[in-house]
Amino acid sequence: MSNQQSFAKDEAAIRSLIETWTGAVRKKDIDAILRNHSPDIWMFDVPPPLQLKGIDAYRKSWDLFYAYSPDSPAFDIREMTITAGGDVAFAAALMRCVFVEANKDPVDLDFRLTIGLRKIDDQWVITHEHHSIPATQ
Amino acid sequence: MSNQQSFAKDEAAIRSLIETWTGAVRKKDIDAILRNHSPDIWMFDVPPPLQLKGIDAYRKSWDLFYAYSPDSPAFDIREMTITAGGDVAFAAALMRCVFVEANKDPVDLDFRLTIGLRKIDDQWVITHEHHSIPATQ
Repeated sequence: MSNQQSFAKDEAAIRSLIETWTGAVRKKDIDAILRNHSPDIWMFDVPPPLQLKGIDAYRKSWDLFYAYSPDSPAFDIREMTITAGGDVAFAAALMRCVFVEANKDPVDLDFRLTIGLRKIDDQWVITHEHHSIPATQ
Repeated sequence: MSNQQSFAKDEAAIRSLIETWTGAVRKKDIDAILRNHSPDIWMFDVPPPLQLKGIDAYRKSWDLFYAYSPDSPAFDIREMTITAGGDVAFAAALMRCVFVEANKDPVDLDFRLTIGLRKIDDQWVITHEHHSIPATQ
């Protein structure tokens, strides 16, 4: 494979991984959400605290997320760029999120997402996530 | 060079680039701030709007920044991890920022930072920055 073909293959693999992850979020499938994440993931989430370290803290962040959306949320990629090398990659995206709860109005929360990945044993693994909304102050 | 040596060399080059950038922010040297940035940079900044595209929008974001800090701000790396491949890299960091204005109390704004880079013509270039604070809602 040429370098160009290799980059295209890595980019496609990462796009598929991220789309599978967003699908898992919509399905509230926590095991699938965590499937391609590093035990050492460093996360910057939308709500406080400032940072979360490790897969257990990352798993708990989804409990908080689903407290806001007991029913399946919208969690869709509006725009994404993937920058893939042979062994390290990152993706930046604008995301659409809608929290859904019976007998309440849905709540829109568009946010910005950056994902960092490393290829380990020929498999892309997410080692960093940064989710945010602009400051309101 | 072995792969390990090459990764260490890239990581050191990126650390130096980011430290030079934070120094330029402290010195209010806008040309130095922009020196290693892509014309197509995609930025997610702390204040609105949701996104900024291109180096001109990126440059203007610093005008807004210095409106809050007419005197030299603190802008320091508290903790940073760099994940460098041969041609793509990203860095995640917790940052200390203090806005400074004569005759006013300094204002602390600790924030989270993710930087995405691509190696172009053997030189690391920043193509993505994501700055944020946790949501207060």
